[in-house]
Amino acid sequence: MTEDFPAKLPAPPYYAVIFTSVRTPDDDAGYDAMAAAMIEQAAQQPGFLGLKSARDAAGRGVTVSYWADDQSIKAWKADAEHLVAQKLGRERWYADFALRVAKVERAYRF
Amino acid sequence: MTEDFPAKLPAPPYYAVIFTSVRTPDDDAGYDAMAAAMIEQAAQQPGFLGLKSARDAAGRGVTVSYWADDQSIKAWKADAEHLVAQKLGRERWYADFALRVAKVERAYRF
Repeated sequence: MTEDFPAKLPAPPYYAVIFTSVRTPDDDAGYDAMAAAMIEQAAQQPGFLGLKSARDAAGRGVTVSYWADDQSIKAWKADAEHLVAQKLGRERWYADFALRVAKVERAYRF
Repeated sequence: MTEDFPAKLPAPPYYAVIFTSVRTPDDDAGYDAMAAAMIEQAAQQPGFLGLKSARDAAGRGVTVSYWADDQSIKAWKADAEHLVAQKLGRERWYADFALRVAKVERAYRF
């Protein structure tokens, strides 16, 4: 979790990757290490703007990362998949997950 | 929180409203009642597809609602703002919040 929550971002348009998941109760240590590595890796990618994540006590999580453009997401995706594959944890960590790529058209902050 | 988590949705394109917030420690009962009313109201709106939400122990939350089109979001927004205004709780409940409207272009589920 970065400190600027909600994210302070440039004016739209930019892109969002919406990741919703349900954690299994297994391997918290392995999962936390992978999640930290994933965030660190994303933050080093060109076009990365920010990331917000929350997970409730039942293991349901919503993570949104923000990107300057779709090209940055595609470049990051290959690296991210490699990282998860290395850890071999997907089936162990997640009961279910979905990933959506969306173009942010409007933003409001209060 | 609806039961289908992550949401089972039609094929893109459709729209997402990304709401990131930080809760104050105040008035949990009032906040929970407003949040439940907001979800119930959204679910009755034309074009509503689903909603996913998670909040961590520090009070940081990410909620994403999905909509068939932007027109549905604009119609819902007026009602939602009315509901929050009625409750007069925004300053009390939220230390900070941001709202973004995005068009989902691609979706993956594993």
